Amino acid sequence: MTVLERLERELGDIVDTAADVLDDARADRSGHRSSGAPIAVVHARSVDDVQRVMRIASATGTPVVVRGAGTGLAGAANAGPGEIVLSTARMNRVLEVRQDDLLAVVEPGILNAELNAQLAAHDLWWPPDPASREISTVGGNIATGAGGLLCAKYGVVRDAVLGVDIVLADGRLLRLGHRTVKGVTGLDLTSLVIGSEGRLGVIVGATLKLRRLVEGAVCTITAAFPTVRDAAAGSAAVTAAGVQPSIMELMDAASLAAVHALLLLPAPASGAAQLTIQTDGPAARADAERIASVLREAGGSVVLTDDPIEGERLLAVRRSMHPAMAALGTTLIEDVAVPRSAMAAMFDEIAAIEREFGVSIPTVAHAGDGNLHPNFIFEGEIVPPRIWAAADELFRAAIRLGGTLTGEHGVGILKSRWLAEELGDDQWEIQRQILRVFDPQGILNPGKVFADA
Amino acid sequence: MTVLERLERELGDIVDTAADVLDDARADRSGHRSSGAPIAVVHARSVDDVQRVMRIASATGTPVVVRGAGTGLAGAANAGPGEIVLSTARMNRVLEVRQDDLLAVVEPGILNAELNAQLAAHDLWWPPDPASREISTVGGNIATGAGGLLCAKYGVVRDAVLGVDIVLADGRLLRLGHRTVKGVTGLDLTSLVIGSEGRLGVIVGATLKLRRLVEGAVCTITAAFPTVRDAAAGSAAVTAAGVQPSIMELMDAASLAAVHALLLLPAPASGAAQLTIQTDGPAARADAERIASVLREAGGSVVLTDDPIEGERLLAVRRSMHPAMAALGTTLIEDVAVPRSAMAAMFDEIAAIEREFGVSIPTVAHAGDGNLHPNFIFEGEIVPPRIWAAADELFRAAIRLGGTLTGEHGVGILKSRWLAEELGDDQWEIQRQILRVFDPQGILNPGKVFADA
Ligand SMILES: Cc1cc2nc3c(=O)[nH]c(=O)nc-3n(C[C@H](O)[C@H](O)[C@H](O)COP(=O)(O)OP(=O)(O)OC[C@H]3O[C@@H](n4cnc5c(N)ncnc54)[C@H](O)[C@@H]3O)c2cc1C
Ligand SMILES: Cc1cc2nc3c(=O)[nH]c(=O)nc-3n(C[C@H](O)[C@H](O)[C@H](O)COP(=O)(O)OP(=O)(O)OC[C@H]3O[C@@H](n4cnc5c(N)ncnc54)[C@H](O)[C@@H]3O)c2cc1C
Repeated sequence: MTVLERLERELGDIVDTAADVLDDARADRSGHRSSGAPIAVVHARSVDDVQRVMRIASATGTPVVVRGAGTGLAGAANAGPGEIVLSTARMNRVLEVRQDDLLAVVEPGILNAELNAQLAAHDLWWPPDPASREISTVGGNIATGAGGLLCAKYGVVRDAVLGVDIVLADGRLLRLGHRTVKGVTGLDLTSLVIGSEGRLGVIVGATLKLRRLVEGAVCTITAAFPTVRDAAAGSAAVTAAGVQPSIMELMDAASLAAVHALLLLPAPASGAAQLTIQTDGPAARADAERIASVLREAGGSVVLTDDPIEGERLLAVRRSMHPAMAALGTTLIEDVAVPRSAMAAMFDEIAAIEREFGVSIPTVAHAGDGNLHPNFIFEGEIVPPRIWAAADELFRAAIRLGGTLTGEHGVGILKSRWLAEELGDDQWEIQRQILRVFDPQGILNPGKVFADA
Repeated sequence: MTVLERLERELGDIVDTAADVLDDARADRSGHRSSGAPIAVVHARSVDDVQRVMRIASATGTPVVVRGAGTGLAGAANAGPGEIVLSTARMNRVLEVRQDDLLAVVEPGILNAELNAQLAAHDLWWPPDPASREISTVGGNIATGAGGLLCAKYGVVRDAVLGVDIVLADGRLLRLGHRTVKGVTGLDLTSLVIGSEGRLGVIVGATLKLRRLVEGAVCTITAAFPTVRDAAAGSAAVTAAGVQPSIMELMDAASLAAVHALLLLPAPASGAAQLTIQTDGPAARADAERIASVLREAGGSVVLTDDPIEGERLLAVRRSMHPAMAALGTTLIEDVAVPRSAMAAMFDEIAAIEREFGVSIPTVAHAGDGNLHPNFIFEGEIVPPRIWAAADELFRAAIRLGGTLTGEHGVGILKSRWLAEELGDDQWEIQRQILRVFDPQGILNPGKVFADA
């Protein structure tokens, strides 16, 4: 009996082999596609379904690619020939919300925005807010260790998960972590699963750490600067002033120009870069005014509003980055992070790479935490070697500046060849051995993160 | 050549075999002592010293117990016959402080309070504040995943470490983590080392995530309640009101009475329990007033002050808990955590255990995060079986209520026999296998955390 037959016999009509479904599972939003169609997509409805799939996969040595919404940017959820795709999209219930304990227990397939819509009714929210929150799953957010705009103030996924339930490669269910806010019983395997990109186990449930919705109005500030270096210095001055904005985004000249063109706004001054900042909470207005004066001091021309509609209009410029890039060509969205103090130097490196390789690299940054998204634009479906060469320079520059390959998107397949360079060979090898503890056969998402494992 | 001779030949006079030094290394502050003296205490001054010790230990299969300040409460740093003690106390330098990146790089042996004294000169602090901060090391804080009074608002050690350097059992040095605030490159081994109680490697350096010192005055509130249940309900009401105190400590009647006796204060009303709360930051006064009214509503008799000296006087009652217990006899300080909503139920369980076993269990709690410290008092040096039986009941009750064995003190030897009960056998086994990846021979702190490994 083939693997497909076993799956169909055990799991019935949740085993999907429609050509378009298989084809969709070959790619995520990175633009990278696998070499061909996987065996099947299984639409799991329950933990039990997941366990059955993993038992068949283990028994037959068949690789399994777990897939949330497929919005990843590292190729980590891309499935190819001979692989089973395990989709969590139908496991999308909120099982429990506790206002007193500030926690929720959820299934992995719920969309981030859908969860937050449900939590809002309880006056609660889950802070991680990737720009993809309308279209990505909580399980995917956990598996990638996602960040977002608000994370300088409210933390990343890593700060917002108390526990996860995972199904191991052999089908066993493990409950990791706590319902308590503190707990040091044994090794912290919850943290190990966060950001593990589908390699340690299938996340089938999560206990999330919530916050109460922030009270009060939001203030929004934009500050235009003559150059990107000035804008980076402006954001450093805000951090140095000890005020904590909820959002602090930086757009370089090429990004700003592209978005203005897309939104039919007047072209910005040549070379001008921009900070977009929000403050929230009871001191929103006072914080915003302090930030505005710091930014004026730093040479910015500042607009400040506490009108929500006007604020959204200002933030829309930043939020239109993805469509603006898509309008220019195919995009490889990069994701390096550097210590905040090295941000200006990183922009210099990017300018040097642009000159050296004759490419334009529009870049936005989560300036509050030194996380840059340089966008490489090209024609066609496949990243050309010249772009990879430029990206290679970019990664090395970030590591040289004390930074990292990926601040929030993960390693996937697209960055696996640089992983050992950042980790060092000894650590790389130890990480691989830890994979083997969870998945001795290596059937969970093989080839992702660790190129040859 | 004996192990001691090899150590002395390679490391010279930092190898200490003075009888009192060896004897001190047999115990931490849990009161538990090992069965006899270890081989030697090596006072490492450098990473290189640590590597040499580990190479000798590996080559000879000799167990190594890493020791910070020996203030642990789980017996995790206790060393016995045939073991080498590796002391980090002389590795106590601050190597780098970055105000712009809000980070510091330190050696492991620096005392928490000493570090914070140095950081204060830069207007910075490292938030983890175990009650032992004057006498415990940063390396020990990381190895135990320590918490403290401020952690409901400012986080525990786990939230305040960007990276650690560890020396493996075989002497290799690994640099884990980042200098950046975000980073998802590979598995998060930094989190795995936090709370690993000396079993994965020797922490020889750490990159710490700092905060700017909080501006403004601190307000202090005490609220006395007729019963401990009322006090627990009062703290829940504060959490429910959405105000975040910096400190929220609960003392039950027996604790309060013992401290009052020690400090020669008038005896509190019979059965009365007390909350001690502080607020800080720009809204300290407004938050304090809101909390005071919530507590009055909940039936508390409230005292509020923004006078720093008066505030310290009020907090001194909570801070005198350890000496007050010591005055009563030998203490086994326990450390369960439950979801905040289960705190009142946990106090009921403690009362039931007191009745069943005929013991008094004065209990304080970090009420903001559901972490209780029940104190078992007895005569003599060794915990009597009846006390262990009562503690056993306590652990099971906490786990039943959705809680955990240890919120911040760790497992050590004293709780290793309950570990598998909380983790489940499958997870327990996976954790042990992860130890083996780092330390195949099992020479780092054997027998701690995992009873038979
Ligand atoms: C327009 C756009 C904006 C974006 N903005 C951000 C941003 O601001 N911040 C950010 O961090 N990312 C961002 N991303 C990237 C992406 O949305 C995130 O990585 C997201 O967390 C992926 O979620 P997903 O459900 O789509 O996961 P998928 O793409 O389906 O999977 C991603 C990885 O997680 C694994 N995985 C998914 N679910 C599970 C599970 N239940 N158990 C185990 N493994 C699982 C997969 O195997 C794969 O390795 C953006 C993407 C787009 C297209
Ligand atoms: C009065 C008092 C109050 C306390 N209050 C608190 C509190 O509020 N919160 C709290 O969490 N704890 C508290 N504790 C417990 C204790 O102080 C903490 O666990 C502290 O973090 C231990 O630090 P240490 O340097 O003394 O470590 P040690 O006791 O020397 O060691 C503890 C563990 O860490 C390991 N270790 C130490 N250094 C290293 C290193 N460099 N590399 C690898 N492993 C290492 C040891 O092997 C051992 O397993 C208190 C203790 C006392 C006596």
